[in-house]
Amino acid sequence: MHVSVIGGSSIPPATAAIAEELGERLAKRGHTVVCGGLGGVMEAVCRGASAADGETIGILPTDRRADANPYVTTPIATGLGHARNALVVLNGDAAIAVDGSHGTLSEIGLALAHGRAVAGIDTHDVDGVEAVETPGAAVDYVENAAGTEP
Amino acid sequence: MHVSVIGGSSIPPATAAIAEELGERLAKRGHTVVCGGLGGVMEAVCRGASAADGETIGILPTDRRADANPYVTTPIATGLGHARNALVVLNGDAAIAVDGSHGTLSEIGLALAHGRAVAGIDTHDVDGVEAVETPGAAVDYVENAAGTEP
Amino acid sequence: MHVSVIGGSSIPPATAAIAEELGERLAKRGHTVVCGGLGGVMEAVCRGASAADGETIGILPTDRRADANPYVTTPIATGLGHARNALVVLNGDAAIAVDGSHGTLSEIGLALAHGRAVAGIDTHDVDGVEAVETPGAAVDYVENAAGTEP
Amino acid sequence: MHVSVIGGSSIPPATAAIAEELGERLAKRGHTVVCGGLGGVMEAVCRGASAADGETIGILPTDRRADANPYVTTPIATGLGHARNALVVLNGDAAIAVDGSHGTLSEIGLALAHGRAVAGIDTHDVDGVEAVETPGAAVDYVENAAGTEP
Repeated sequence: MHVSVIGGSSIPPATAAIAEELGERLAKRGHTVVCGGLGGVMEAVCRGASAADGETIGILPTDRRADANPYVTTPIATGLGHARNALVVLNGDAAIAVDGSHGTLSEIGLALAHGRAVAGIDTHDVDGVEAVETPGAAVDYVENAAGTEP
Repeated sequence: MHVSVIGGSSIPPATAAIAEELGERLAKRGHTVVCGGLGGVMEAVCRGASAADGETIGILPTDRRADANPYVTTPIATGLGHARNALVVLNGDAAIAVDGSHGTLSEIGLALAHGRAVAGIDTHDVDGVEAVETPGAAVDYVENAAGTEP
Repeated sequence: MHVSVIGGSSIPPATAAIAEELGERLAKRGHTVVCGGLGGVMEAVCRGASAADGETIGILPTDRRADANPYVTTPIATGLGHARNALVVLNGDAAIAVDGSHGTLSEIGLALAHGRAVAGIDTHDVDGVEAVETPGAAVDYVENAAGTEP
Repeated sequence: MHVSVIGGSSIPPATAAIAEELGERLAKRGHTVVCGGLGGVMEAVCRGASAADGETIGILPTDRRADANPYVTTPIATGLGHARNALVVLNGDAAIAVDGSHGTLSEIGLALAHGRAVAGIDTHDVDGVEAVETPGAAVDYVENAAGTEP
């Protein structure tokens, strides 16, 4: 399945480690990572997926594919600014939020509005988001919620 | 100033009364209401503004101006679906949330991401949103936060 | 009716005079001008409409309402870049092109794709665009094509 | 390089054959095809690329990845309607138009507005579009114009 991974663009090392592990687990399970294509959680999750030869789609707010972090395998330029957040969640069958600030909050809202299952690690406490402790639990949750094996 | 009013599309009468009063107060203070143009809080706030001869801009998810509620003075068709939420908050100098579900949550996140002050009445408990009890307090808050009189 | 006026952002004085006359005629006929909100034809048509106390909607590619030319009565910020061209033609019941380069060509295509009648003055020679000589003829054409009086 | 292929959604068999050959040539040269993801030229070019094991990105107007034609390897849902045309050309380093109607015309305009080289086969006669006779000549043109080998 395709899993949207959303989260902060400026994060401490411990959060990066979580996002990286998440990317690696998703890739090993055969899932494609969809994200916003920039830094922080977006880069860490792509780096992890990349280490496991996974595919990563980065849907950028800017109009240049070159703005994607180096671990994005398929960058998509949009030139839409924050409006591209809707596309990030639309292209996942479910979403996992890690940390994150206002942009992430908007993506959580959009994911839920589109009926996507959302797991969250150290993120906003929002009704409808399944709070989990580990990347493994997040992957389990979205796999079960979507009722889909890769 | 322009104030984005965001909130649920399906609401009980008590919430509609609050949104209507909010629209009337905003219009009387000379502010333009910006909203998503459809029903629920969007329609109630426009009805209130309309009663005070105020201006209301409805930024629609659909591609037809005719989809706007009857109290929108300037409907804008976008055809962008939920991606139009970014435009709703971008066109206000500040935002007020009333009630609301996932779409409203996304708009709160987008408003904060764009640096807008946000007041909330019976809405999501989000860091950065000033929880207030009444329409009058909401108007006071956004006027002060924006440092702008009409 | 709402008429989208599209055209070059960098134009000679003779073209500006045509666009200005067009804006004045549209406003006197009670029509609202919809445009991209910036300079060149967009500014000239708004200046003309403004001289006749007309309403003008400027749908901007940027995320700041302040980027609109001074004759726009209702600026709409989008932050969508060229993708906002779709919104410019979507919000008119018909379109009139004056001069213009590649951006204008894209708007002509989008207007026709949305089934809008399009009149053109000194613009691209495109099948489906009614070439006319004067602002008056352009207004006549779109009024007749839309089958609508203001 | 990435090449945006744009063209009609309803085409005769002879046009489909041209688009299919174009897709096959692009893939054999190592290029990724970017298109609107639906039928007609979009499907034919993807089918051709697919026969040569090429990669194809389909940027859809709808909000469902499942709407992509079966030869798209990476579908991107946008929910943006015609506004997604901007993304189709933004994600190519150059563009090739085959046949096509109003939507294609808008994409030609957007491609030129973004400074992309554009080759055209049996398509709109537009200043700035290099008219060529064959898929091979189209591929040569965009490779030379972009100054890029795969």
